[in-house]
Amino acid sequence: MNFDAMFEEQLQALKDEGNYRYFKELERKCGKFPRAANHEDGQKRDVTVWCSNDYLGMGQHPSVVAAMCEAVQRTGTGAGGTRNISGTNHDHLLLEAELADLHGKEAALLFTSGYVSNWAALSTLGSRLPDCVILSDSGNHASMIEGIRHSRARKVIWQHNDVADLEAKLAALPANVPKIVAFESVYSMDGDICPMKEIVEVAEKYGAMTYLDEVHAVGLYGPRGGGVSEREGLAHRITLIEGTLGKAYGVVGGYITGSAALCDFIRSFASGFIFTTALPPAVAAAARTSIRHLKESSDERMQQRRQVARLRAALDREGIPHMHNDSHIVPVMIKDPVKTRMLADYLMDEWGIYVQPINYPTVPKGTERLRFTPSPLHTDADIDHLVNALRTLWRQCAIAHAVA
Amino acid sequence: MNFDAMFEEQLQALKDEGNYRYFKELERKCGKFPRAANHEDGQKRDVTVWCSNDYLGMGQHPSVVAAMCEAVQRTGTGAGGTRNISGTNHDHLLLEAELADLHGKEAALLFTSGYVSNWAALSTLGSRLPDCVILSDSGNHASMIEGIRHSRARKVIWQHNDVADLEAKLAALPANVPKIVAFESVYSMDGDICPMKEIVEVAEKYGAMTYLDEVHAVGLYGPRGGGVSEREGLAHRITLIEGTLGKAYGVVGGYITGSAALCDFIRSFASGFIFTTALPPAVAAAARTSIRHLKESSDERMQQRRQVARLRAALDREGIPHMHNDSHIVPVMIKDPVKTRMLADYLMDEWGIYVQPINYPTVPKGTERLRFTPSPLHTDADIDHLVNALRTLWRQCAIAHAVA
Ligand SMILES: Cc1ncc(COP(=O)(O)O)c(C=O)c1O
Ligand SMILES: Cc1ncc(COP(=O)(O)O)c(C=O)c1O
Repeated sequence: MNFDAMFEEQLQALKDEGNYRYFKELERKCGKFPRAANHEDGQKRDVTVWCSNDYLGMGQHPSVVAAMCEAVQRTGTGAGGTRNISGTNHDHLLLEAELADLHGKEAALLFTSGYVSNWAALSTLGSRLPDCVILSDSGNHASMIEGIRHSRARKVIWQHNDVADLEAKLAALPANVPKIVAFESVYSMDGDICPMKEIVEVAEKYGAMTYLDEVHAVGLYGPRGGGVSEREGLAHRITLIEGTLGKAYGVVGGYITGSAALCDFIRSFASGFIFTTALPPAVAAAARTSIRHLKESSDERMQQRRQVARLRAALDREGIPHMHNDSHIVPVMIKDPVKTRMLADYLMDEWGIYVQPINYPTVPKGTERLRFTPSPLHTDADIDHLVNALRTLWRQCAIAHAVA
Repeated sequence: MNFDAMFEEQLQALKDEGNYRYFKELERKCGKFPRAANHEDGQKRDVTVWCSNDYLGMGQHPSVVAAMCEAVQRTGTGAGGTRNISGTNHDHLLLEAELADLHGKEAALLFTSGYVSNWAALSTLGSRLPDCVILSDSGNHASMIEGIRHSRARKVIWQHNDVADLEAKLAALPANVPKIVAFESVYSMDGDICPMKEIVEVAEKYGAMTYLDEVHAVGLYGPRGGGVSEREGLAHRITLIEGTLGKAYGVVGGYITGSAALCDFIRSFASGFIFTTALPPAVAAAARTSIRHLKESSDERMQQRRQVARLRAALDREGIPHMHNDSHIVPVMIKDPVKTRMLADYLMDEWGIYVQPINYPTVPKGTERLRFTPSPLHTDADIDHLVNALRTLWRQCAIAHAVA
């Protein structure tokens, strides 16, 4: 059997529809964010990164960098085992305590990534709570979808951010089955924020557990970076808050927080937690330093907000259509995978601006976009340069103002 | 609905059967392996770790530690995005090239862990190859089992390392459906090694793809650390070789290697690869240094082999029963979860020896064990101390020589 031919056939289909992905090869340069080198055709060239999820540049913050180096030198490069078999390190427990405190919860549990934390927690809850029904926002991230799918629990999808629909679906379920309402605070591709209070109230009314993904909000919202649930004063009413250490905190890893019983339950039963090497203690130490910094300092958040507002205002001035939302994410819709890539290539080649074309399966087909994430480290000049480039592009291209 | 009560009920059941897990809290000390500090009841005490999967102590090797620090200082603490969206770094591609070379394959693909690489690769292959049947060794790791389960492909389990059974099951399938034979080289808990040549030949005879997990073999077997498939000269006949960067290489992360088309296929379609923050470039740099070191140096492997043989001989001399196998893993069967924990606690408290009790679900109920992993850095005196402790224990305990 010619397996390679089977693979190539499916890859060709991606190419034919314009959805085949070309990864840019960057070289991050510590201290230079958002500048990085782009490797292409054997050449290396400095570009400005406009699509990083190191939202605040914390991955290059001197204290985070120092904490990681210090811990590598103190503990080595790896954990040396799964959490159960020699892999639990003092640094992991310090980080878990920090995370529990961040969200005002009894406990926290660390995973190798945010993806794994969602997948493992939802698949464990869904499969081990008898007759459990998971009510999932239609915009939920792949990691939640796969976790729910893996659990084989009954799944009910409610319309994105539509509390009336959620309530109708909750009301239609038997009173005595365990229910989990799974949703996100900031949706990463549209940048919209959920009506959290209303969701929590409806869930409480029907006795449902709330499962909240704050991956694109932790570090960024709330006075201590506890996410939208902190900002809204709702964290204590949410059963489980999930987050990542790989975006605003600038490192890698994921976690859940909740009651001690909840975290112990996932710890004890989740395959994706149990059967894998623990994160390096040095990763935990770096993440903890980043979290602590953003608990105390709002400077990065404030400066980010300023630059986001500045970019939006400039885009509005130029009549460049972008999605309106209340977050730090600035999507410019193109709605065609080939055109989106063309624009991105042009921005890179002519202007030294790197923004990755976002296509299927990250967004639905027909909603392809450029997604800009201004950071506190993007200067006013960077913004001007970007807007200049887009203005020129918009004038040149036929798609111009037609894309709304 | 009282969710915490539901969690606690299931946790209580674990406690009642002796399978509830207590994690030891260690503090690894770079340069001191296998010594580490154990935190307990507010006290800190030096112990010797006898159950680490940092099999060669590479997680504390000066060149690996230096590589990680250098790369943290050069690139920062994180990748800053998913592989597609600004997260692919030069260091990732260097590592992937190193891994492809290690196994003599066209390409390699990096994942956040070995668990995720198995889960993502198998679930993608199983779900996207039409009518695919996965023939899975009955001893396969949880990450493979969950990947197969998630794919919803038809799964046929063959008796552990039983080639005749595999052949019978292959022969019973229609000739024209894609088949994947999934197995491991070194099984981590029994330490037995598969009959690789026979498996490959049977798979070839029936036109099946071979999927080999070398997680407990890479770095450890073969002249360049390419695993058992390298040692046996079989790597080129295996379709996909999967491995980890978190065990013998001493860092964290996982990977697959295979044809360019295969890796591109997984890269393009695997949810667990696409929708997650890439590993920090510094992790990639450290892992690459470790791999390169073990490609050139066999000293660590030779010294490990010597210490493994020494431990086995000493156990034999004392009549302490251990499982015989051809690997570096020395399991001492206790066959009861409560007794296993009792013995481990005693070794820790009285002798400063840390070996984690291995219980369900890591091993089947009734096969609980102590699992020793001698490294090149365990001295002869460490081995004498361990054997002394076990001899004393075996004399004292009623279970003594009855456990065979
Ligand atoms: C909403 C959401 N949840 C979870 C994840 C996964 O987090 P991580 O990158 O830490 O795996 C992502 C993106 O990567 C995400 O966008
Ligand atoms: C056979 C096997 N495969 C895969 C894994 C997962 O690798 P990782 O620890 O890198 O997630 C493990 C253990 O953790 C394993 O024992």
